[in-house]
Amino acid sequence: MLSNHSKVIKSDHFQWEGVEKKEYKSDTNNFKDIHRYSLLGEEITDLNFQTRYFEIKPGGFSSLEKHQHPHSVVIIRGSGSVVLDNEVHPIKVHDVVYIAPETIHQFHADHSEELGFICVVDRERDRPVIPNDEVIQSRISSQEVLNKIQK
Amino acid sequence: MLSNHSKVIKSDHFQWEGVEKKEYKSDTNNFKDIHRYSLLGEEITDLNFQTRYFEIKPGGFSSLEKHQHPHSVVIIRGSGSVVLDNEVHPIKVHDVVYIAPETIHQFHADHSEELGFICVVDRERDRPVIPNDEVIQSRISSQEVLNKIQK
Repeated sequence: MLSNHSKVIKSDHFQWEGVEKKEYKSDTNNFKDIHRYSLLGEEITDLNFQTRYFEIKPGGFSSLEKHQHPHSVVIIRGSGSVVLDNEVHPIKVHDVVYIAPETIHQFHADHSEELGFICVVDRERDRPVIPNDEVIQSRISSQEVLNKIQK
Repeated sequence: MLSNHSKVIKSDHFQWEGVEKKEYKSDTNNFKDIHRYSLLGEEITDLNFQTRYFEIKPGGFSSLEKHQHPHSVVIIRGSGSVVLDNEVHPIKVHDVVYIAPETIHQFHADHSEELGFICVVDRERDRPVIPNDEVIQSRISSQEVLNKIQK
């Protein structure tokens, strides 16, 4: 099937037909027990955005990062929490997270179960930046967040 | 909270805090028992795309239509079927549907339960067109699809 054709990608227990479970990132290692599934990705040139699924195992987390492009996130599995600059929010199935440009953010599967979410981003986007200690100190005063983040 | 700020929108049984259940469309009436929730919409000007949730009651359907902009769809509730030009596919929770430009499409909650799905579209997009009988006849030869579509 041509990748630009309409299609249904069948799912089975958070796996999708023909979609590989991939390494989360290859250029950094400030994350733990998280994988990436590119559901509708760069192969579909008619799309201006990409639809990915991320799954974090209990105790794992995504990289602490910020970037100019925003994220639209819908939780579809389990629960956990998300750091958004100076706040940490509990999240669970069907909650929606908007991550605005330059927000320091990190997802945590800290509720003893998987945390899985759909994350949509612009096809053309800037690379994430890992905030250094100076940036963290200037932006984050909450002790709860400082205790939560993994660098 | 400023709408362009990062935020979590909490969900509760397919309702979202501060998000209205809206009419599906106001300019046509070729649909049945379907509602729209704008989760991350035009108020967030930093987003180049919009994240909506649609829910169809058992027996209902979306409008039969086509347009230039593509759709990225993730089913998050129940099951049903989707017409994609000359094919009809069963769909259920967590299946992903890519609807390419100009595909004639229609969602049906035809499995005796709600069908709910996240649908992401470009912020700037063309208006849907309802295909007339001539277009339908030229594009659709499958009797199964012809029996399924509701005009």
